[in-house]
Amino acid sequence: MKRIGLLAIAVVTVACLVVSFISASGKAAGEAAPIYLAQIPPGYRDWRLISVAHEEGNLNSLGAILGNDTAIKAYRDGKLPFPDGTIIAALHYRHVASEENNKVFGRAQSFVPGTPTNVQFMVKDSIKYAATGGWGFGHFNASDGQPGDEAFMKTCFPCHAQTKTSDLVFTHYAP
Amino acid sequence: MKRIGLLAIAVVTVACLVVSFISASGKAAGEAAPIYLAQIPPGYRDWRLISVAHEEGNLNSLGAILGNDTAIKAYRDGKLPFPDGTIIAALHYRHVASEENNKVFGRAQSFVPGTPTNVQFMVKDSIKYAATGGWGFGHFNASDGQPGDEAFMKTCFPCHAQTKTSDLVFTHYAP
Repeated sequence: MKRIGLLAIAVVTVACLVVSFISASGKAAGEAAPIYLAQIPPGYRDWRLISVAHEEGNLNSLGAILGNDTAIKAYRDGKLPFPDGTIIAALHYRHVASEENNKVFGRAQSFVPGTPTNVQFMVKDSIKYAATGGWGFGHFNASDGQPGDEAFMKTCFPCHAQTKTSDLVFTHYAP
Repeated sequence: MKRIGLLAIAVVTVACLVVSFISASGKAAGEAAPIYLAQIPPGYRDWRLISVAHEEGNLNSLGAILGNDTAIKAYRDGKLPFPDGTIIAALHYRHVASEENNKVFGRAQSFVPGTPTNVQFMVKDSIKYAATGGWGFGHFNASDGQPGDEAFMKTCFPCHAQTKTSDLVFTHYAP
């Protein structure tokens, strides 16, 4: 039986009345405005593994990328573009040395997830999110479950748009 | 619906007639001998995420730790020792720079799973694996699905035995 993560429950409770917010600034009438997620997709912590990721530098991040059933099927079938209904979640944590593990191993080699930093989502809906390549982007701070502000959210699409050959998705499936 | 990973299918096919092998060398009559897994638990690639891990040095590894339903429930409930039936899987890959991602980011910061190296398991059965703290250990090469040799497998328990306060398990749950 699938179970919903406590974080997801807490955040969904807080955000349950809000469906999405629309960025309308600087857009001419009739031009599609980007839509960002304002609600964490429920149950994401129970989704299956797509891959893992480590980012050095300022991000200093260790992460897991999970996918809902539609995402996992698309990855395993190797079909692009991803179908509507696909949701990909990226769970990010600080990349921290594990003193506990290193003590056992006898050397400084082990890094594990530290404080959770954020959870990010890509939701495929080719109609709703037509203005951003069919993907709705979401970013939620782990500390309070709040979404990223508009200035930050505007950076998602231009960056992902550089990965056109994989339908705007950076992550490949880890076998 | 849960699906079984292709790797798991392939390896289970190869190993399906072998249940386990028993290390009997150097053991006095009547003394319990350690038992190692000789078969990959089916369906593990569909299990839920426990955490992720990065090992530097010779291991140079990026990994995901998954758990079956019993494992996930025990972790979330915070109950130790883990109950019989718990299975924890560690999927290991080479930790490699992603040139594709770094090109987009404009700096060398991104590391992703490279070639799969091995999959390791801990199976809790307090009777069957009494000689090794209630845990059966398994290691399978990603290249051919073959288990580790006995000399290698003998190193699992003494190392894990140093993590007594977490019932011989290194990995903590990532929220």
